[in-house]
Amino acid sequence: MALIIQKYGGTSIGDLQKVDAVATRIIQAKKLGNKIVVVVSAMAGETRRLDNLAKQITPQCNPRELDALLVAGEQMSVALLAIALINKGCPAVSLSGSQLGIITDSNHNAAQILKIDPSNILQVLDSGKICVVAGFQGVDANGNTTTLGFEGSDTTAVALAAALQADECQIYTDVPGIHTGDPKIIPQARQLENINIQQMLELSGLGAQILHHTSVAIAEKHKVPLKVLSSATGDGTVINHDNGNNYNFSVISGIACNKKQMLVTAKNINYKLSNNIISQISARDITIDMLTLEQSALVFAVDSLFKAKINNIYNDFLVTDGLAKISVVGSNLRSDAKIINTIFATLDSLEIEIKICSTSEMRISILIDTIYLEQAVNAIHGAFNLAELEEIITA
Amino acid sequence: MALIIQKYGGTSIGDLQKVDAVATRIIQAKKLGNKIVVVVSAMAGETRRLDNLAKQITPQCNPRELDALLVAGEQMSVALLAIALINKGCPAVSLSGSQLGIITDSNHNAAQILKIDPSNILQVLDSGKICVVAGFQGVDANGNTTTLGFEGSDTTAVALAAALQADECQIYTDVPGIHTGDPKIIPQARQLENINIQQMLELSGLGAQILHHTSVAIAEKHKVPLKVLSSATGDGTVINHDNGNNYNFSVISGIACNKKQMLVTAKNINYKLSNNIISQISARDITIDMLTLEQSALVFAVDSLFKAKINNIYNDFLVTDGLAKISVVGSNLRSDAKIINTIFATLDSLEIEIKICSTSEMRISILIDTIYLEQAVNAIHGAFNLAELEEIITA
Repeated sequence: MALIIQKYGGTSIGDLQKVDAVATRIIQAKKLGNKIVVVVSAMAGETRRLDNLAKQITPQCNPRELDALLVAGEQMSVALLAIALINKGCPAVSLSGSQLGIITDSNHNAAQILKIDPSNILQVLDSGKICVVAGFQGVDANGNTTTLGFEGSDTTAVALAAALQADECQIYTDVPGIHTGDPKIIPQARQLENINIQQMLELSGLGAQILHHTSVAIAEKHKVPLKVLSSATGDGTVINHDNGNNYNFSVISGIACNKKQMLVTAKNINYKLSNNIISQISARDITIDMLTLEQSALVFAVDSLFKAKINNIYNDFLVTDGLAKISVVGSNLRSDAKIINTIFATLDSLEIEIKICSTSEMRISILIDTIYLEQAVNAIHGAFNLAELEEIITA
Repeated sequence: MALIIQKYGGTSIGDLQKVDAVATRIIQAKKLGNKIVVVVSAMAGETRRLDNLAKQITPQCNPRELDALLVAGEQMSVALLAIALINKGCPAVSLSGSQLGIITDSNHNAAQILKIDPSNILQVLDSGKICVVAGFQGVDANGNTTTLGFEGSDTTAVALAAALQADECQIYTDVPGIHTGDPKIIPQARQLENINIQQMLELSGLGAQILHHTSVAIAEKHKVPLKVLSSATGDGTVINHDNGNNYNFSVISGIACNKKQMLVTAKNINYKLSNNIISQISARDITIDMLTLEQSALVFAVDSLFKAKINNIYNDFLVTDGLAKISVVGSNLRSDAKIINTIFATLDSLEIEIKICSTSEMRISILIDTIYLEQAVNAIHGAFNLAELEEIITA
């Protein structure tokens, strides 16, 4: 008897008809003889509705009370799904954040999971029932309600899979699996049957919004068997944990994009000043990328979101806004100059200027003007023939 | 420093503007140097919205999951009110059913409070903050979410007032206090400045829907200082605990009505059969009233709601449906034939037939055809001059 975690996002349970379809899918999995834990987000639009109510009172909500408000969304959806399952003759019990055993720190709105006490969930499973669990939420050591931040339900699902040593963690979305690029931007993007967890980690960290980065990191650390599946068809992508780098060739899994990037440069600075800048960036929880420090210039990319925070750190920053980051993600990339050359030659033929480039084992990232983004990613996707090839690019 | 419980119903916080007005009223009370616990219902319409979602899946919802769903309504309103209070510079903490320390039995949808552990509430109050508490909800001994049934937030407020030995429990409604009758039916109904708790108990048990009967019963048992106030004006009625029966005259407080009553008669029955009928009524949780057993006939009034249940008990019941119950509530009533006479003479002059009458120390109840209800209660209200007199009717 396998233990399976299924996670359904807000669009998968967006109305009662979809709740009904999800209940049917869960019962199918149960009938195969599996123990099932279902993690559910709030119904599509509900979290935004609640957040809007709070923001109408004040844009600066008390974080504890905002969490207390937002968790109502998942509590509704778990109860409705449990009612639907029971109505179809399948015993089920819903558990909310205070009942499901996820203990977090007290960092409201973006809490981190400290430990999981799965005893309530195991009790439900041992009684032969389906356990329907509210995603996105937990409690701190004092019993205050907390939330895990954006896409926190993915994190709930993967963390529970790790704690329960589940045989499989299935993330159901309205997009069928992981693609070689965002199908909204790259019409030719192809669905991947498999992807290595390290590459998934890079993709999710680079704005590919299928799985939240934290959840992929937990899956990688605890070797959680993970699948990303379409809630409509049940097809999708298997995320595997074997080491793709045993092969002596380069592999490209996909292309990720981040819009609204800035390039920040500090010229003529000394070692002490650059250290000071980096320590201030860290203290302010600013996420930077593509950092280079050479001769007397410090250069990095950062989300435009952080513009005000960045400008407060150092008066003489040169800031170029309106950029986009394109990242080619795979394995064994740095050692293969052909891949870098293909990217550069493709953009050169389109007369698109590369502002900065950085490479690592698992990705090659460039910054370009955002207006060229669509044209550039489709050209790169085509240059590597990602719509056709089964991942292997160069021997 | 006084400890005050304030309870606000769903219409009092029906939109964000009203939430703002309630926050202002709470802060006024706090500024007078009081410790404040606020009990809040779900925003008007929210519980019905959630209930409708569940009932669209199935009319026969699993009771545990229906409770898990419904409590989301109060959790939203406590968080929103706390956000509003904090935004006005007044520190506040919201507590949901799992946090506020109300332990109930496991009778979902109509749970009874078993004990209250006020330590979380006291901790909030001791830190100088306002404690905003979700009404209507608690948890059972196993941590399952429960609800206290219709108008359960009144019960929450009064039970907390008892447990915390509050100096005052203020129930805010959209109706300004207790009246001599339902102003919607009796335009001449007068607001009472005071009412005795025993009479309030009779009124609330007889369909006067200002305060739920359970909450009045708890207030009576624990001598909770209770006020029913208008959320618009702050005016209202004081419910006092002194024994109104020390006076040697009759007092009428008001008139209550119950529509949809049935008169049930079983003729030619023996002692054993009548005992059997009564024990079955009790076993099925049917509430009956005006029971008389004389010679070989058993007669009682019962809400039409119970029609199917009643018919299952005994084949030969004679059932008259379409009746209304009018109850004149006060003290020292039974000993005063003038009051009974006034009621009978008033209805006789209107040619309204009294189907049955029963009297007790605190009330005189009659059943008449529902079509005459409005005419009858207004005539009785007028006959006792309740719009003018300060309660005392006869010397």
